[in-house]
Amino acid sequence: MADSIRFAIVGFGNIGAGVVEVFSHNRAAINARLPRPLELVRLADKDLTTPRPVPVPPGVEFTDNVEKVVRGDDVDIVVELVGGLRPARQFVEAALKGGKHVVTANKALLADCGAELWALAAKHGVSLLFEASVGGGIPVIRALQQGLAANQLLSVRGILNGTCNFILSSMAATGAKFAEALEEAKRLGYAESDPTFDIEGYDTAHKIAILASLAFGQDVRFSDVYVEGITHIRAEDIASARETGHAVKLLAVARCDGPGEAVEVRVHPALVPLASALGRTDGVLNAIEIVGNAVGPVTLVGRGAGRGPTASAVLSDVMNIAQQMVDGGAPLDRRLKVPVGERNLRPMRETAVAHALQLSVLDREDTVATIQEALRAERVDVARVVERSRRPGEYFNLTIFTKRSSEARLQAALNRLAASQITVEPPTVFRVEESA
Amino acid sequence: MADSIRFAIVGFGNIGAGVVEVFSHNRAAINARLPRPLELVRLADKDLTTPRPVPVPPGVEFTDNVEKVVRGDDVDIVVELVGGLRPARQFVEAALKGGKHVVTANKALLADCGAELWALAAKHGVSLLFEASVGGGIPVIRALQQGLAANQLLSVRGILNGTCNFILSSMAATGAKFAEALEEAKRLGYAESDPTFDIEGYDTAHKIAILASLAFGQDVRFSDVYVEGITHIRAEDIASARETGHAVKLLAVARCDGPGEAVEVRVHPALVPLASALGRTDGVLNAIEIVGNAVGPVTLVGRGAGRGPTASAVLSDVMNIAQQMVDGGAPLDRRLKVPVGERNLRPMRETAVAHALQLSVLDREDTVATIQEALRAERVDVARVVERSRRPGEYFNLTIFTKRSSEARLQAALNRLAASQITVEPPTVFRVEESA
Repeated sequence: MADSIRFAIVGFGNIGAGVVEVFSHNRAAINARLPRPLELVRLADKDLTTPRPVPVPPGVEFTDNVEKVVRGDDVDIVVELVGGLRPARQFVEAALKGGKHVVTANKALLADCGAELWALAAKHGVSLLFEASVGGGIPVIRALQQGLAANQLLSVRGILNGTCNFILSSMAATGAKFAEALEEAKRLGYAESDPTFDIEGYDTAHKIAILASLAFGQDVRFSDVYVEGITHIRAEDIASARETGHAVKLLAVARCDGPGEAVEVRVHPALVPLASALGRTDGVLNAIEIVGNAVGPVTLVGRGAGRGPTASAVLSDVMNIAQQMVDGGAPLDRRLKVPVGERNLRPMRETAVAHALQLSVLDREDTVATIQEALRAERVDVARVVERSRRPGEYFNLTIFTKRSSEARLQAALNRLAASQITVEPPTVFRVEESA
Repeated sequence: MADSIRFAIVGFGNIGAGVVEVFSHNRAAINARLPRPLELVRLADKDLTTPRPVPVPPGVEFTDNVEKVVRGDDVDIVVELVGGLRPARQFVEAALKGGKHVVTANKALLADCGAELWALAAKHGVSLLFEASVGGGIPVIRALQQGLAANQLLSVRGILNGTCNFILSSMAATGAKFAEALEEAKRLGYAESDPTFDIEGYDTAHKIAILASLAFGQDVRFSDVYVEGITHIRAEDIASARETGHAVKLLAVARCDGPGEAVEVRVHPALVPLASALGRTDGVLNAIEIVGNAVGPVTLVGRGAGRGPTASAVLSDVMNIAQQMVDGGAPLDRRLKVPVGERNLRPMRETAVAHALQLSVLDREDTVATIQEALRAERVDVARVVERSRRPGEYFNLTIFTKRSSEARLQAALNRLAASQITVEPPTVFRVEESA
C-alpha cells in the first residue's frame, strides 16, 4: 500500500500480542475511520522463539533487530511495548530523534523521564502519545487533556491497579487473609509471580504521577509520590471498615486546592464510602474520579489492564496520529500538552488528611475522655465517633474519624494514646477519602 | 489583544451565563494552556432586558443583533446556546458559511440535521463541535471519537436525563408517586414548568441519536429513535423491581451486534441490576456505558446538566478549536468525524429485547403451567422466575424474566395470558437491560 501509514511494534509480549490481535480483527473498522489506511509492517522483540498467543500476521516482518526498527526510515509510528526504563528509553529516544511518532503504554518510563521525552518529541516535531499508560482502555488521558481542559482541576483520585483491587475486594467478600487473596489472584492470572510492583503500590504511583502532571501542569515524577502498599491490610480491618460504611481501597490521590496551592500526590490504602463510585469499584476494574471546578466530579470506570483494553488505547493513539499526519498541523503533543509550571509539591509530612482510627479499648468510665484528651492535646479534631461493638465492663470497639490533620500531629496523638494504656491492641489507622 | 482568538456567545440564558461565569473565573488557567489567548468579545440575545445571573463582563459587547454576531468578521468562534431548531439552525448555518467555527450544546438541532451541518462545516473548512450536547460535562463525545476509536462498538447505554433520573430515584427512595416526585423535581429546579420534553423521553432520544451516529457511523436522527417516557411508572412497579434486584431507569440504548448488523436505537424505562453502574446512578447524575469489542465496558458518570458542567464542555470545545487554529491542520470535524455509512436501522417491532413481567396471579394448581404455556405458545423463552410474595390459596406475585424476544411475540403472549384469566391485575411489563 503506497500511501498507507506504517507502524511497527517493539515488544511482542502479552500486550504486543493484544495490539496485533485487535488490529487484525478491527482493521476494516479502523481504516474506515481514517483518511489513509494503517499498516502494521514490523514486529520487533529480542526474543524470537517464545511461543506467542497470536501468530505473526502474514506480510509482517518479525525481527530481533530492535535498533533497526526504531531507526529505520520505513515506519511512521513506533509503538513501544517493551516496558521498564532500559532499554525502552533508548528505543523511544531513537525513534523520536529519527522523526517517528511514538505511542507507548510505558507508565514507568513516563513517570521517570516523561518531561524529557515530551520535550524531545516537540524538538523533533513528532507526537508521543500514551493513553494506555494509565487505566488501560479508559480514555482518561484524553479526558484530562481535552474534554475537561477548561476546568481548574481540584483532585484526581483513582483505583489504578487491578491486582490490588482484586485482592482487597476478595478479602472483603470472603474474609480471606492478604496472603490467601494474593495466591488466588496469582492463580487467576491477576497477579505476577513476583507481585511486589503491584502490591507495594509502585504501579499505582507511576500512574498517578502521570495523571498529576497532566491535571496540574507540573512535572510530577514517580519519586515525588508518597507510596504505601497493601501488604499489611488485614481482613478484620476491612470488616471494621465495612461496619462504618467504608471500603478499603488502594487509592491514588492527586489534589490541589486552587491556583498557587501546592499539589499533593500520594498512594496508600484509604477508607472510601461503600456507596461511592470508588467504593463500589470491585475486582480488577479501575476507576478514576476527576473533580473540576466547573464540571464537578466525573468518574470513569473500566478494565484497567489486559490485552484488549490496552490495545484499545494503543491503537486509538495510533489512529489519532495517523489522522494528524494526513490532515497536517502541529504534532499532537503541542496540541495536547499542558504547560509545565513551576514545581510546587507538598511533602507528605505537611499534608493534612482525614483519618479513621479503628480502636479496641478498655471499657472504663474515663476511656472516651482519655481518647479525646490525647487527640485534643495534639490538635487533632474529631469529626465523629462510631461505636462498632462492645463487651460491657471489658472492652469496646470504635472508630474515630478525625478531621484533616497532619501526619505528624496524628502520630503524636497516637503516641499519647499508647501511653495512656487504654488500648487493648494497637490501633489500625486508615486515611479517609470522602465522596467528592 | 491583537493576536487573541475571539469568540462570541449567541443565547445569554442560563447556560450562556454559565459559560461567561466559568470563562471569567478560569480565564488564566485556560489561557495558560493555549498558544494564543481566548477572548470573549460579544454576547448576543434577542432579549436584552431580563436580569441575568451574571453581569456582562467589562469590555464585552451585549447586543440583540444576533445576525450581526453570527455574520460579523470580528469573531473566530461562535458558541450557539439558543437551543431548539429555529432560529438556532439559521444562526449556525450563517456562522459556518461565514467561515466561523461553531460550538453548540444544541442536541435537538444535531439530532434533527446534524449530518447537514457537519457537511456544511466541512465544506467551509471549519469545525462544529458539540461535546456539551450529551451528558453535560462528561467527555463522552471525545471518548467515542478518539479514546475508543479503535474499537468496534457493540452498545452505548445511558442515563442521559437528570430530570427523569431524579424522579425515578426519588420514587424509589421514598415510595412517592410519579406526580409527587415530579412536583419535588420542579420545586428543586430539576424539572421545567412544562416537563414534557424530559419526562416523555424526547431529550434522551435526541442525545442517543447523536451517540448512536458517532458509535456506529450512521446518520441516526431523533425521528429514528423509539421513545417511551416515564409518566406511567408506579412506585409499586419500582418496589417490585427492587425485590428482584433491579432499579427502574429511563434508559437510552444503541446497540449493534457486529459489522453488517442493523443498529437499534431506543429510549424507554428498563430494569437494570441494582448492583450495576447504571443501576447505582441516582439523582440528577448521568451515566453512559460504552462497550467496545477490545476495551470491554467503559462507564462515564457525572453531572449531565447545569451551568458548570455544560460550560466545562462548551469551553473545552472552544479551547480545542483555538489550539487547532494556531497549530494549523485540517478542521477538527475532519479529524474527528466518523464515516457516515449506509443507514441500517432495526425498527422496534423487529427488535428482540429481554423482558420482565411483574405478575399478580391466582394461586391455583395450574397457574405456573398456564403462564408457561402462554409464553411457550408464542415462543417467548423464560430465563428465570422469581416469586416475590404469596398469599397461599389466593394469589401470588412473581416476576418472569424472559429471554430476548420480539415485542410482537411478547404482546401475543400477554394477550394469551389475559385470556387465561389467571391474572389478578394487569401485568406490568418492563424491558430488561442486564450488565454488560
